[in-house]
Amino acid sequence: MRYHETPLRVRFYEVDSYGVVWHGHYAGWFEVGRNDLTERFGLGPHELKEDRLLAPVVELTCQFKLPASFGDLLLVQTTMERAEVAKLIFRYRVLHQERGKVLSTGSTTHVLTDPSGTLLYRVPPKVLEKIEAMRNYLGV
Amino acid sequence: MRYHETPLRVRFYEVDSYGVVWHGHYAGWFEVGRNDLTERFGLGPHELKEDRLLAPVVELTCQFKLPASFGDLLLVQTTMERAEVAKLIFRYRVLHQERGKVLSTGSTTHVLTDPSGTLLYRVPPKVLEKIEAMRNYLGV
Amino acid sequence: MRYHETPLRVRFYEVDSYGVVWHGHYAGWFEVGRNDLTERFGLGPHELKEDRLLAPVVELTCQFKLPASFGDLLLVQTTMERAEVAKLIFRYRVLHQERGKVLSTGSTTHVLTDPSGTLLYRVPPKVLEKIEAMRNYLGV
Amino acid sequence: MRYHETPLRVRFYEVDSYGVVWHGHYAGWFEVGRNDLTERFGLGPHELKEDRLLAPVVELTCQFKLPASFGDLLLVQTTMERAEVAKLIFRYRVLHQERGKVLSTGSTTHVLTDPSGTLLYRVPPKVLEKIEAMRNYLGV
Repeated sequence: MRYHETPLRVRFYEVDSYGVVWHGHYAGWFEVGRNDLTERFGLGPHELKEDRLLAPVVELTCQFKLPASFGDLLLVQTTMERAEVAKLIFRYRVLHQERGKVLSTGSTTHVLTDPSGTLLYRVPPKVLEKIEAMRNYLGV
Repeated sequence: MRYHETPLRVRFYEVDSYGVVWHGHYAGWFEVGRNDLTERFGLGPHELKEDRLLAPVVELTCQFKLPASFGDLLLVQTTMERAEVAKLIFRYRVLHQERGKVLSTGSTTHVLTDPSGTLLYRVPPKVLEKIEAMRNYLGV
Repeated sequence: MRYHETPLRVRFYEVDSYGVVWHGHYAGWFEVGRNDLTERFGLGPHELKEDRLLAPVVELTCQFKLPASFGDLLLVQTTMERAEVAKLIFRYRVLHQERGKVLSTGSTTHVLTDPSGTLLYRVPPKVLEKIEAMRNYLGV
Repeated sequence: MRYHETPLRVRFYEVDSYGVVWHGHYAGWFEVGRNDLTERFGLGPHELKEDRLLAPVVELTCQFKLPASFGDLLLVQTTMERAEVAKLIFRYRVLHQERGKVLSTGSTTHVLTDPSGTLLYRVPPKVLEKIEAMRNYLGV
């Protein structure tokens, strides 16, 4: 299993009054990592839409281990879990580049729906192929 | 001339590492005040869309006079300027409720376009009527 | 067990390109509900700081059930779990006021630390009293 | 006069329900460009703090010319104006990298204060030197 890596620099407005990144911003960073990964396989939000699909987040989890500060260079690492059809589970780690420490871990679970929001029980073969290519890349 | 007033409470994540509201959040607060006003006259983003109109912001200005802190109760005051047709100029003040001080002033300028983004040079009479009603309310 | 309730209105900038609230904003809303609750018992971020305590989030979970749209009137419901000493677990529900439906559920887990970030294994009696008062109010 | 350039990619959560970047995010991007510039000259928020200085924004202006979309590669261009002592005026342009078009222009005006917020009428020579080095780099 491998992680896809996306570099990131902490922005001033992401830091709260305790001088550390506000915890809610990690959801946005996970998304930055996920989109950077999925777009390489034609599975970004725009491409999905062209295939008349949506992949809304149905669950988010995040564990906060160490704080990040303004200006820190981070690495968002994104991978996937093997999951039943029509459900995608991504796993994330946010690392401090210089210190090599894991600051945060987390996951998002997505379902696949049609544009009206109805759950898909069969993923279109064309999309399934792309998901398989992404899984091969990640070794999962 | 009168101001339409919208109360607001400073959220924890709106405060930066200096312990005061990050300046960029005022753009969101101006918008909260503006939507609270325009919706009363059928001119909110949704209603405009139903009339096949958009009112994108083409200019934002903001002057920062005093800082706001977490938990502060504020008042967003919104009014309009008389402006040429197919252009709307809103003016804002953000006040500290308890202290009665003006923390910030600002403006947004909007043009009216059709859904494709083409500028309107004549506002549909139905929309013009609503704008007139809003102006009467504000005394401008 | 009861929920403490905090009303909220969806802001325009909280809605994403799918026309629904972006999932990451729920972390901020949970915090709005939590602070509204804890401040009533002298346990808000500022009061904790005066007691030389921090209560950083170490885990966030969120389940997304139904989408929210611009302008929707919501209710953030906040309660607590009974938890071991020096750890606070809050549980949340976000409801659509008019439709009475649960849009989202979630939790945050907090540890108590001193200002240097060292975990407390014994909560100061003064703070413990406040936590007990909050628990009584919530019936947990 | 030259611009200091900072690349940026539009994040999913920065896009609003019209499918374009929400106008308020430009304030954050200007700040990303400004910090990227000032840090090269020891004038970033952290370094200023060490010199017991603050540089709060007292005015923000922003003109929106063309919209940006999710995933767009942008360039934040930052420069300064010659200004009277104890006041810094930065000017910004946000460009679409591929299309080479200016999407937005703007400015922020900052005053220099001591940690208590009192305006400085004389900038410490050490800081003045850094500002001069930054001006030389920018050719202003």
